Amino acid sequence: MKLEKKAKESFVTSAEMVLPNDTNPLNNLMGGRLLHLMDVVAAISAQKHSNRIVVTASVDNVSFKHSPALGDTVTLEAHVTRAFNSSMEVFIRVWSENIPNGTKVETNNAFFTFVAVDQSGRPITVPKLIPETKEEKRLYEGALQRREVRLMMAGRIKAKDATSLHSIFEDYKNGAE
Amino acid sequence: MKLEKKAKESFVTSAEMVLPNDTNPLNNLMGGRLLHLMDVVAAISAQKHSNRIVVTASVDNVSFKHSPALGDTVTLEAHVTRAFNSSMEVFIRVWSENIPNGTKVETNNAFFTFVAVDQSGRPITVPKLIPETKEEKRLYEGALQRREVRLMMAGRIKAKDATSLHSIFEDYKNGAE
Amino acid sequence: MKLEKKAKESFVTSAEMVLPNDTNPLNNLMGGRLLHLMDVVAAISAQKHSNRIVVTASVDNVSFKHSPALGDTVTLEAHVTRAFNSSMEVFIRVWSENIPNGTKVETNNAFFTFVAVDQSGRPITVPKLIPETKEEKRLYEGALQRREVRLMMAGRIKAKDATSLHSIFEDYKNGAE
Amino acid sequence: MKLEKKAKESFVTSAEMVLPNDTNPLNNLMGGRLLHLMDVVAAISAQKHSNRIVVTASVDNVSFKHSPALGDTVTLEAHVTRAFNSSMEVFIRVWSENIPNGTKVETNNAFFTFVAVDQSGRPITVPKLIPETKEEKRLYEGALQRREVRLMMAGRIKAKDATSLHSIFEDYKNGAE
Amino acid sequence: MKLEKKAKESFVTSAEMVLPNDTNPLNNLMGGRLLHLMDVVAAISAQKHSNRIVVTASVDNVSFKHSPALGDTVTLEAHVTRAFNSSMEVFIRVWSENIPNGTKVETNNAFFTFVAVDQSGRPITVPKLIPETKEEKRLYEGALQRREVRLMMAGRIKAKDATSLHSIFEDYKNGAE
Amino acid sequence: MKLEKKAKESFVTSAEMVLPNDTNPLNNLMGGRLLHLMDVVAAISAQKHSNRIVVTASVDNVSFKHSPALGDTVTLEAHVTRAFNSSMEVFIRVWSENIPNGTKVETNNAFFTFVAVDQSGRPITVPKLIPETKEEKRLYEGALQRREVRLMMAGRIKAKDATSLHSIFEDYKNGAE
Repeated sequence: MKLEKKAKESFVTSAEMVLPNDTNPLNNLMGGRLLHLMDVVAAISAQKHSNRIVVTASVDNVSFKHSPALGDTVTLEAHVTRAFNSSMEVFIRVWSENIPNGTKVETNNAFFTFVAVDQSGRPITVPKLIPETKEEKRLYEGALQRREVRLMMAGRIKAKDATSLHSIFEDYKNGAE
Repeated sequence: MKLEKKAKESFVTSAEMVLPNDTNPLNNLMGGRLLHLMDVVAAISAQKHSNRIVVTASVDNVSFKHSPALGDTVTLEAHVTRAFNSSMEVFIRVWSENIPNGTKVETNNAFFTFVAVDQSGRPITVPKLIPETKEEKRLYEGALQRREVRLMMAGRIKAKDATSLHSIFEDYKNGAE
Repeated sequence: MKLEKKAKESFVTSAEMVLPNDTNPLNNLMGGRLLHLMDVVAAISAQKHSNRIVVTASVDNVSFKHSPALGDTVTLEAHVTRAFNSSMEVFIRVWSENIPNGTKVETNNAFFTFVAVDQSGRPITVPKLIPETKEEKRLYEGALQRREVRLMMAGRIKAKDATSLHSIFEDYKNGAE
Repeated sequence: MKLEKKAKESFVTSAEMVLPNDTNPLNNLMGGRLLHLMDVVAAISAQKHSNRIVVTASVDNVSFKHSPALGDTVTLEAHVTRAFNSSMEVFIRVWSENIPNGTKVETNNAFFTFVAVDQSGRPITVPKLIPETKEEKRLYEGALQRREVRLMMAGRIKAKDATSLHSIFEDYKNGAE
Repeated sequence: MKLEKKAKESFVTSAEMVLPNDTNPLNNLMGGRLLHLMDVVAAISAQKHSNRIVVTASVDNVSFKHSPALGDTVTLEAHVTRAFNSSMEVFIRVWSENIPNGTKVETNNAFFTFVAVDQSGRPITVPKLIPETKEEKRLYEGALQRREVRLMMAGRIKAKDATSLHSIFEDYKNGAE
Repeated sequence: MKLEKKAKESFVTSAEMVLPNDTNPLNNLMGGRLLHLMDVVAAISAQKHSNRIVVTASVDNVSFKHSPALGDTVTLEAHVTRAFNSSMEVFIRVWSENIPNGTKVETNNAFFTFVAVDQSGRPITVPKLIPETKEEKRLYEGALQRREVRLMMAGRIKAKDATSLHSIFEDYKNGAE
């Protein structure tokens, strides 16, 4: 197993067509179906980084800005942002296109976390991730903070131990945004 | 339209069987497929409160504590916790059972937010929610705070305007858990 | 294994949304798809009573009074009515709702029979069922008669041995309804 | 519209493969899924007789004698047995084959009833059915009796008006099988 | 294993209804979905000739003359045309009907090739095919030529070794059609 | 509408996971299911070139060199090779990966032809395609020849009018490969 892998080695893209069974009574893609598509693409990305079977550990807050319509093409892009022992954070961006009309909008984006496991389902170490571009580095830096938020929300660490969040709280204490 | 409805009027429960196509290579339910099932049940609950077509607006952080296996029965329970103008927060709890083995565990829980819309997809006012039990009141109280977190994360309000979060920050400042 | 279980221990309810692929050219739920949904919920109920894998043995006459439409919510409720050695009769009631319109009607109801089996597929004894409410007792009493009808229709017993049916025939002979 | 059509004009056959999602934990075809397949083939048969959109009205008692396994080929054969105003009774036989093993067994058979409807869903008259072979004539004769059983079970006629059933009752009264 | 089997022993027919998820934005059956249906029926036919598990080896040029619409009945007929060691060529014809309108057209036809394999996936000899009718004999004769075209296109034989194609080339050289 | 578009503007890639329902009894992806996935991705590519609704017109000979297994990731890449009035030829390459094992092989490749249509399904002119890379130019050149083969096979042109094929026949006449 490699000890380190580049962010771009985990890059995955997928184009899907919105089919009737994926839609709500307004003929738009249901939110839950989109989360399902995102989970599959993100899992492939985490597999590529770890060369392991992976299981979804958590999904961060997801907002749906725009609803893709029946017949639209939905494009999903995912890559690993950072690895922690056996877990990996994956960033997924989703676009929706009505190709005949020439319109394309960002539907939403999200962070999914996966754990690499062996054949018995036990967590197993994964390579470290090396970010290269400016965007990859920004996502890599933010991953630590997002991880502490997840652990706090799951009740596994206390606020005072979430050291990467201190600067946010300081900002708040000083009345900053 | 009623101006107010009780929490229990939006209660929905659903039992599903984990089928082969829902599973990953370890024969466990994929996280994305579970989110899809949760979205459908939560949408029915929001429909019951609002008597409107509803669209998923956001999903809060979801952690998967346990993976239901192929053939397991997954039971989902949802009800609206609080209504805000045209949006409703729905709480969903999920249990997984291997009935022949007599085992039953809580898989995860989550908050989904829906917006009630008219036939053209425009947001429309919904009844206020009246919590009755102790649990319903606790979820009702917390809904304001979770809403401010969502608005902050979507960049729509600033930390200093998220007044319901002040007590948490105060707790932090004083070193409390 | 328990020797007896109450009817309410096998109670299962499930809410489903009618999706496009479930419908006929009139945009209504196909009868066969509804039977499929009923079979899954009834099987979960029979599993709950027996804590065993179960297989469908038969379905009694089913009439479709009303066709749920695309987007409607279909609610299914099932519980075991009576147990016989390795077989269980399950009663399922189905409602269909157009929640935005506030309409709810009973779609149909049916009796499914399941056999509990071991891992090799061989029939295995199940607990006796104890009915408690008036409705549960009425269904429990009728189960014997329905079972003899099934055995007669399958050619496994003769009319003169279907002793529970005698009173019906007497009624007929005497010109009663 | 023709006033009469032959039984053989409504003959339909279909071969399907049992896929993983159709199976229970014993890797056998679920009963409800088989009823779904039967409903589709029987509906095509009723369409062929009536040249109309059709909706499922009822399903008679179905016993499952044998469970097709994953990968087996399921063959369904259906034809209309008799027409009554706007309704048609369809007989469906199902065989299951493990072709590599060279085994083929009858899985079950059933009677489904369909109503022909116009574009608004209103019942509409269908051609009379002309049975030709000995088997078709036997099924045609029995259809009247099965129809009275259905009407009695749905509470729409009384036992004393079910004239075609009298001979059965007489047999019973005289102690015959 | 039999050394020879008749063409008619491999005959398979299947009737399917075009469901919403099978269609494109014009509400017509997608070409790829039809190829999928053809592959399943052709595989059953190849299984019947060989009594073996079979895998798809190739599909010849397919033209779609007509697009079945949502709700149409698609009828597929397949039989083996000729066997070569472990491979079998299957001919599939497809009709599309709008039964209420009384219209029926040939949608397309195609040749699929399958290889019979043992449980480990290794190719295994199949019985020779005996054509009986004029049509079966015509298809049997043409199979040799189509096979050489496939081998040439896959780069496995050279034009000068494709002896069955010589007459075609001669026709060309002499300016004939 | 643009009069010309570059090949790369129609480039589409998609990553899919092989699910249980897609597989045959050897747990490998069925050929017909793969053709379905290829059709969807190729249709998106043809939509991107034409900004129109497209329908599949034909599929050229496809050989399956390798069967992706359950759980494998299948990656499809498609782009338009050449446009002719209202039709477009699309080239699709497919790879199959077992990511945990680190194996990746080319599964197959194929040419699909699509016709751009208006809302009534009538053919409509598409932009010309401009090839840029060496590979795009090679595919562009070959498209004319493949088109004549398709027209000959569909019986719409005669061999002597398939002028682009003459060099191949000459090669043959002179005994060359």
